[in-house]
Amino acid sequence: MSARAAEDMISPTGLVNRQVRLVARPNGLPTEEVWKLADSAVEDLSDGEALVKLSHISLDPAMRGWMDDVRSYIRPVALGEVMRAPAVGQIIASRNPKLAAGDHVWGLLGAQEYARCDDQAVRLVDVNRAPPERYLGALGITGLTAYFGIRDVGRPRPGDTVVVSGAAGAVGSIAGQIAKLDGCRVIGIAGGQDKCRWLTDTLGFDAAIDYKSDDLRAALRRVAGEGIDVLFDNVGGEILDTALARLRRHARVVICGAISQYNLTGDVSGPRNYLSLLINRASMTGFIVFDYQDAYDRATQELLGWLDAGRLIAREDVIRGPIDAFPRALLDLFSGANTGKLVLELAPRG
Amino acid sequence: MSARAAEDMISPTGLVNRQVRLVARPNGLPTEEVWKLADSAVEDLSDGEALVKLSHISLDPAMRGWMDDVRSYIRPVALGEVMRAPAVGQIIASRNPKLAAGDHVWGLLGAQEYARCDDQAVRLVDVNRAPPERYLGALGITGLTAYFGIRDVGRPRPGDTVVVSGAAGAVGSIAGQIAKLDGCRVIGIAGGQDKCRWLTDTLGFDAAIDYKSDDLRAALRRVAGEGIDVLFDNVGGEILDTALARLRRHARVVICGAISQYNLTGDVSGPRNYLSLLINRASMTGFIVFDYQDAYDRATQELLGWLDAGRLIAREDVIRGPIDAFPRALLDLFSGANTGKLVLELAPRG
Repeated sequence: MSARAAEDMISPTGLVNRQVRLVARPNGLPTEEVWKLADSAVEDLSDGEALVKLSHISLDPAMRGWMDDVRSYIRPVALGEVMRAPAVGQIIASRNPKLAAGDHVWGLLGAQEYARCDDQAVRLVDVNRAPPERYLGALGITGLTAYFGIRDVGRPRPGDTVVVSGAAGAVGSIAGQIAKLDGCRVIGIAGGQDKCRWLTDTLGFDAAIDYKSDDLRAALRRVAGEGIDVLFDNVGGEILDTALARLRRHARVVICGAISQYNLTGDVSGPRNYLSLLINRASMTGFIVFDYQDAYDRATQELLGWLDAGRLIAREDVIRGPIDAFPRALLDLFSGANTGKLVLELAPRG
Repeated sequence: MSARAAEDMISPTGLVNRQVRLVARPNGLPTEEVWKLADSAVEDLSDGEALVKLSHISLDPAMRGWMDDVRSYIRPVALGEVMRAPAVGQIIASRNPKLAAGDHVWGLLGAQEYARCDDQAVRLVDVNRAPPERYLGALGITGLTAYFGIRDVGRPRPGDTVVVSGAAGAVGSIAGQIAKLDGCRVIGIAGGQDKCRWLTDTLGFDAAIDYKSDDLRAALRRVAGEGIDVLFDNVGGEILDTALARLRRHARVVICGAISQYNLTGDVSGPRNYLSLLINRASMTGFIVFDYQDAYDRATQELLGWLDAGRLIAREDVIRGPIDAFPRALLDLFSGANTGKLVLELAPRG
């Protein structure tokens, strides 16, 4: 059905929901052909449901993995299904006593304009305390990923040298700042001078390396001469390899992601220097933030405390556009265009 | 100096020591050109020293790493130096009150016929309790590597599925048996039907996969359908990659070695499936047995207890030959010719 036809549909609620549906498996980058924008009528709510009008949709590197039909930590998005995405929105109608019209909520609401949910699928967010987009960044899954990745997996001790790749990204920028708060020397690896300056001048990283113009190997030798105690890796590929060669004894490598590898059409490039783990009695450990749900509240309180005290700086890179802009925004993410958390703020369709 | 000329040397002790010296860095396999057999007179002992006549020399995959001029967990063997090697021998003269002529000792005595040592460099071994070659295998560094690798790094729980690569080798065969003693389901990966039969029929492994003739991926799916809890890897390369794809949640991958990679002339092949660590919240950890020296005695007692009780089976693959046979024996190790611990038993020179 074309978008035009849907506008003419008779919707019980009078609302038409435009969705970004996955209709093909990407081979490499998730280009235009894998998506279909589809409109449908918003049906009346059933008992226990509420209707959310989405205002902000998250763009996350992990989304690329969700699009592949492979066994993973979460089932793949099915073909024809609306793209899975964390989002924030406002309740506009409710048949659930725990959710009131006007409430702002966060949940895996999908890349669409409206979502039906129950109170298990969302949690309330306070948009007076922090702007809605922050609940997709420092106060959302992104911040929690950084928090548990660095605290629970990396376990840095005061004085440790912590290296973060993808350091100007959503997770990396928070992970590095938490390591600073924990008394570490923190070095960020990012693409471009502006990002690097932001890391050192605004976030207080001890050093930043622009992998696009610096010789990463030489730069790491210079700024992490004693070696790396914690490597928080969001990137994989050459950057991971180069950093592995600089591990210190008993180093912890946190595998948070591998954005350099997600859109390859060929094989993933494995870390050739993995035997550095043996030589240095080091470990490389993966984690999934969803495993820490029982501790989300405690972690969020700590993140909120740091933000309120000005000890943690959150930055969102907000693109404003209709839901139709989602596919393009996701490509921006993979091109490294954003600094901080990339968010699509939904504007009315033209 | 030629070997013949050395025989004519005037030695204060009347003894001539033939040494296997490293004279070039190997590119790939450690072929003949990297070695020089050199004879020298055995000098009189200084105070505190003892003279050991070596009887058994160990052949270990790790030796290949010691030959490269790279930063590692131990300094490289210098060019011109006698090759580093664990060995067992008998004291034939002593000016150290703790070492008596007739004592059998173990130490990093080198690939040579005679070694001078003090009491810090060696430990006594009881050749009435176990044959000398066993102190290079199950009761030596090999057994200790298996012990700490599986117990301290792999940490299998009863009922876990443990997969061991290089399972018919010196370390792998012990590691797998310890996992069996700890109540695990143990699957060995080895090269050849004979090795596989030995693993299942003699050592009691639950299954064995011949990577040379089986489809490893399909075989692992069949015998480790629920996934792998502990992967004890001695091999690296394709075998590591294939096994990584079968990890279970919270799996521990023990990086003990990577014999498939040691003699490559090109780059090491990194584990392309390392993102399985992320998906499965798994870890990959390296270790070096030398870090556990304080616990050697306790571990050796436990290994000895199992051996005495017939609960652990030690097997040595003993090549008998003069010291000149050392280079060839090392090549045998890398060709996978041995089952169990490969040892060179020194025979008199012809």
